[in-house]
Order: sequence, then structure tokens, then C-alpha cells
Amino acid sequence: MKAAIYKGIKTMACEERPAPAVTEADDAIVRVVRACVCGSDLWFFRDGREADTQTGHEAIGVVEQVGADVTVAKPGDFVIVPFPYSCGRCPVCRAGFESSCPHGGYFGDGDGMGCQAEHLRVPHADGTLVLVPGDATTFSDALLADLLTLSDVMPTGYHAAASAEVKPGDTAVVFGDGAVGLCAVLSAKLRGAGRIIAMSRHEDRAALAREFGATDIVPERGDEAVAKVLDMTGGYGADAVLECVGSAQSNDTAMKVARAGAIVGRVGLPHGVEADIPGLFYRNVGLRGGPAPVRHYDTTADLLNLVLNGEIHPGRVFTAEFTLDDIQAAYDAMDQRRTIKSLLRVSEV
Amino acid sequence: MKAAIYKGIKTMACEERPAPAVTEADDAIVRVVRACVCGSDLWFFRDGREADTQTGHEAIGVVEQVGADVTVAKPGDFVIVPFPYSCGRCPVCRAGFESSCPHGGYFGDGDGMGCQAEHLRVPHADGTLVLVPGDATTFSDALLADLLTLSDVMPTGYHAAASAEVKPGDTAVVFGDGAVGLCAVLSAKLRGAGRIIAMSRHEDRAALAREFGATDIVPERGDEAVAKVLDMTGGYGADAVLECVGSAQSNDTAMKVARAGAIVGRVGLPHGVEADIPGLFYRNVGLRGGPAPVRHYDTTADLLNLVLNGEIHPGRVFTAEFTLDDIQAAYDAMDQRRTIKSLLRVSEV
Repeated sequence: MKAAIYKGIKTMACEERPAPAVTEADDAIVRVVRACVCGSDLWFFRDGREADTQTGHEAIGVVEQVGADVTVAKPGDFVIVPFPYSCGRCPVCRAGFESSCPHGGYFGDGDGMGCQAEHLRVPHADGTLVLVPGDATTFSDALLADLLTLSDVMPTGYHAAASAEVKPGDTAVVFGDGAVGLCAVLSAKLRGAGRIIAMSRHEDRAALAREFGATDIVPERGDEAVAKVLDMTGGYGADAVLECVGSAQSNDTAMKVARAGAIVGRVGLPHGVEADIPGLFYRNVGLRGGPAPVRHYDTTADLLNLVLNGEIHPGRVFTAEFTLDDIQAAYDAMDQRRTIKSLLRVSEV
Repeated sequence: MKAAIYKGIKTMACEERPAPAVTEADDAIVRVVRACVCGSDLWFFRDGREADTQTGHEAIGVVEQVGADVTVAKPGDFVIVPFPYSCGRCPVCRAGFESSCPHGGYFGDGDGMGCQAEHLRVPHADGTLVLVPGDATTFSDALLADLLTLSDVMPTGYHAAASAEVKPGDTAVVFGDGAVGLCAVLSAKLRGAGRIIAMSRHEDRAALAREFGATDIVPERGDEAVAKVLDMTGGYGADAVLECVGSAQSNDTAMKVARAGAIVGRVGLPHGVEADIPGLFYRNVGLRGGPAPVRHYDTTADLLNLVLNGEIHPGRVFTAEFTLDDIQAAYDAMDQRRTIKSLLRVSEV
């Protein structure tokens, strides 16, 4: 099969690899229909990791084969593959944090299970896959794009909003105008935020942020951003802060614009982040978040139904489309900010 | 009037000071009936601060005089004085975080408003005081002790439990077996925890922890405590963690025994605490808490009614009683761990 392979810094290739087979009784094999490139893929693309490894952790597709123990789906069913795989049965999963399941892991981590490929082995299928009802052969390209976001960026944006406990009427601030940040704007809107301040300095992204529900765009960063948001909130700060970048500066600014008693919901992979532990304490500012429990939100937060009913269109974050053969171009376009998020058309339903 | 005065390290005195008067239209003057010594008072008692300053931040008493704008209580009413004073009107107060009100402060901070005294000026009375209904002249000593905890330790323990989001059936771990830790045990029980592990190595405190609802007592600390709690929870850690100490070791242990997805609710004043920010992220472990919004919990979490109805007896944490003249002994008894918490009998209702 064709698979995207990381070759070295800023270098990707589409190479032939053996198609995966069921190796455990709870495995499923998925034929990938759509995959994509994640902002977090740019970390290894730019900074390196073990070469000649398969990549990608977001996919939707058709189940081809299942192990003897799998009940969630049968061959022919259409599924979302969440970026974490999880047992689905342990106390962590039952509490709704499948993304931190100690028996699970993440696709595309160099262990051979990459979503940017024609076929994918899914371990712990019953604890991982999200079954999509309906006749997938009738799904439009736009609906497939919306569904694809449910493998990562939409529930990740929702995790920021849920971790920050966005409530109806809240003023929410969203850091990050990549696909996750934009989905966080949409999620804050879904949860009823009255005012949504998107920190963005790129016009294409700011425009989509507005479409998703942002009421204000703030291009400033650092101390200037803090001053601006405090000024916009009567000096008190925001009721909810959604951190979707992960940098030290973004986290620092996020904590400073939080109203006393607010929570910073963070989903950006932290790089060099520090926290003023006593400062957060005296201001009663909370810090929550982490890798998003995708399956949890797709189902319990009703994201799958909202997409299937056409009520939200998170697939709008895909502003360029590629094939596996063009994997280098798909990464380059995101690395060079020429697209918000690169979609990979791998096969048809 | 008589007032407790900090004189120098480990030295307290009862001295004469001018009785306070109404200076602002939203002030109230309270005749103190009962006050007490807090575990947090031991920080300055042991480590020093500005000398010749009034002390104490917990009191109940009778309103003597009010400024023109005060409506919450009138002279003769019986009130709880929360350790923070707060405007009660700003977005922070309205969100339920009066203890971080940017227009407020804390009693006993060296600004002349100390609760360990015969009379007390309360700024922002409408945003601060909790009115106690009923005829206080009929209140027993035990009820007065229960009510006194509502000025700090009981709502502070509750803040740990609420910040950690203790839910029915949860396994909760409580760090700290002082008055706050014991009230945190009681609060976890009130919120329906199924198993409450109290970290305690003092038999008198462990006994009261059991009375308040602890199901297990763990005397170990540090790595041994982590191993013990993980062993007790199938290797997963606790659903909710209540940190009521504030030391670096206690916080470190608290974060390590949290189940992935759990929240550490912290109310111990942090001293040298650090956090593994990426580690918390990947395990989706949250960090919340701070100074407790006393008034919020006394009313919205129904603590006042539970006390008035005799359903909880947090006043059991007072295991020794003193007068203002004995203030040195009241501090010494807590410093030397001869009492869990020292009550000060200042006047009668």
C-alpha cells in the first residue's frame, strides 16, 4: 500500500509499505478514505524524529476486516478513527479521558500505525472507533471533510472549551488560529459564549474565525495582548480561556488574561511552558486540558450528530487538498501557512 | 479593646488597641464572640512578618454598628465574618470567587483589621458578611464552634472538594490532616465520595477523619504514599485529589496520585510548589483552587443550613479553647500540635 513516510527534517515521501493485517482479536483494519496533516505533525517535520516512520493520526474510512472480539463495527461500516486509541474499559476511559488511557497510545507515533496511508490497523477497536450511521456512499465531499475533523481538531477544540468550562453568556478568549483554534471558537459558540475573542493576525484565519462565531479579533501578542483583552473586559479578564497553541508565550498570555476564578483549557502540546503556581493559586485560576478524548466528545457532546445534521461545518478548516503522492506538498503548504489544514484524498467511499 | 498582636517570631501578646469605628459607608463593626487560630497563622508565627500588627482572619459575632449603605445586617444581627472581604458586585464576585476579588483583601494581614480581637471593622459589609438567622442567644457552644468554622476552614475544605469536582461514588484522596484537611474529608463525604483516603500520621486527627467520613488512613508520605494510593486504586490513581497542605512534597505527591483526567483541588497556601506542566497535560490532570470563596459556599453549597440543622459538626476540629489573654498559649498549642485548632472565646452572644 501507499503510506506517507517521514524521511528527515522537512522531508516526506510516499512509499510502498505492507498493508496491515489483524494481529490481535480486538484489531480492526480500516481502508482510509480521507486523512489529513495536523499542526502537531509540523513539530517533527520541523524538528525531526526517527526517520523512515509512518505518519498521521487523523482518518475516516471503511472497515475492511475485524478481529474475533470486535463488536463496534463490521466490514463495510464507515468509521471515524480518533487520534488516540484506547481500551475503552479502564477507569480512565470510563471517566471520559480515553486520550490518556494507560493501555492506549497515539496513531502516527512511529509504531507503524499511521493514518496517512491507504490502510490502517486500529488496536482496541471497540474502545477506539466511532461508528458513523447512514449510507456513506451518499456523503458529499463537504460532509466527509466535516467528519474528518471529528478524528482530532473539532473534538480537540471542544476539549479546550469544555476544559475551560465555557458557559452561556461567557466572554471566551481563544489562543491559536490554526484548525484547532478555529474549532475552539466554534465550540465556544456551541456552548453559548456571548463574546468570543479570537487572537489572530492572519486574515484568512480571522475570516473563518468570524464565520465560526468570533465576535472580536485581536492581533496583538504578549503584554500588548494582555493589555488589550483586559481593556476589553473592564480590567477583569475573560471568563474562559482556550489555549490552542502550546508555546510558552501563548500559555503565559493565556494565564494572564484569565479572570480570577477562570480556567485555562489547554490543548496545545506544551513546549517550554511554565506556570506561576502561586499566582494562579491566589487568583483561583485553574489549569486543565491535555490530549482530547475524541470519542467522548464525538458522542457525548453530540459532535457527530451536529455534523451529520449539517448544523456545524468544521471541515471548512481544510483549505487545500492533496493525495498521498503529494504528501510533501501537503506538509509544505501547512509549514508555509499557505493553507489552514491540508486534506488528503486517499480513496473514495 | 483587647487585640492579639504579633510581636516577633513565636511571640504573641494581648494588648490594648483603639476599638475600630465605621470609616466608610459600607463598613460594619462586629463585636467578636468567637475567633480562632488558623494553620496559616503559623506561617508568620514561625517565619516572621511586620511586628506589632493585629492578627486573625476568622470570627463570628454580633453587628454593633453599620455604615449608611449597609443592608445585609443591622446592629444586633449575628454574622459570620469570612476570611476574605470582597465587594460582592464585580465579575469575580458574581462568578463565585469573592476570595480573589480585586477590590477586596484578607483580614489579619497587618492592616489593622484582625479577627483575634474584641471588635472588628468589616469593609464592604454587604459583599462580605454572612447573616445567621435565628436567635443567637440560644446557640450552644457547640453550635457556635460549628458556625465559627464557616468563616474559613469548612468552606476551605469544601473548596478543595468542589475544585477537585468530587462526584458521587468517587475515590477521593485528602492531603493534610489539619482542620482544613479534616473539613475537606467532611466535604468529600457531603459530595458523595464512596471512598475517602485521608493521608494522616497523627492518631487524634485520623480518628476525627474517620468520624468525618474517611474510609482509609494512609500514613506514608512521598514516593511511598504514591505507591500506596496507586496500589489501593488498581494502579490508576484517585478520581479526585484534595490538597490541603501547600508544601512542595504534598503537592508533588497529590499530582502523582491523581488518576488521568482527575483534578487536584488545592487550598493549601503554596510554598515552593512546582508543577510538571507537560506531565499534567499528557495525563489530562487539572489543577484548580486557591483561597476559598467562603460566602459562596456558606450559602450556595448550603453549609450554613447544614450547620444550623445539626447535620454536620465541623466545630469538632476545635480541640482546645483559650481567651485573648492566653493568645500565646493558643498559638503554642497549634505550633506544637497539641491541638488540631485553637478556639478563642472572646465574648458571649
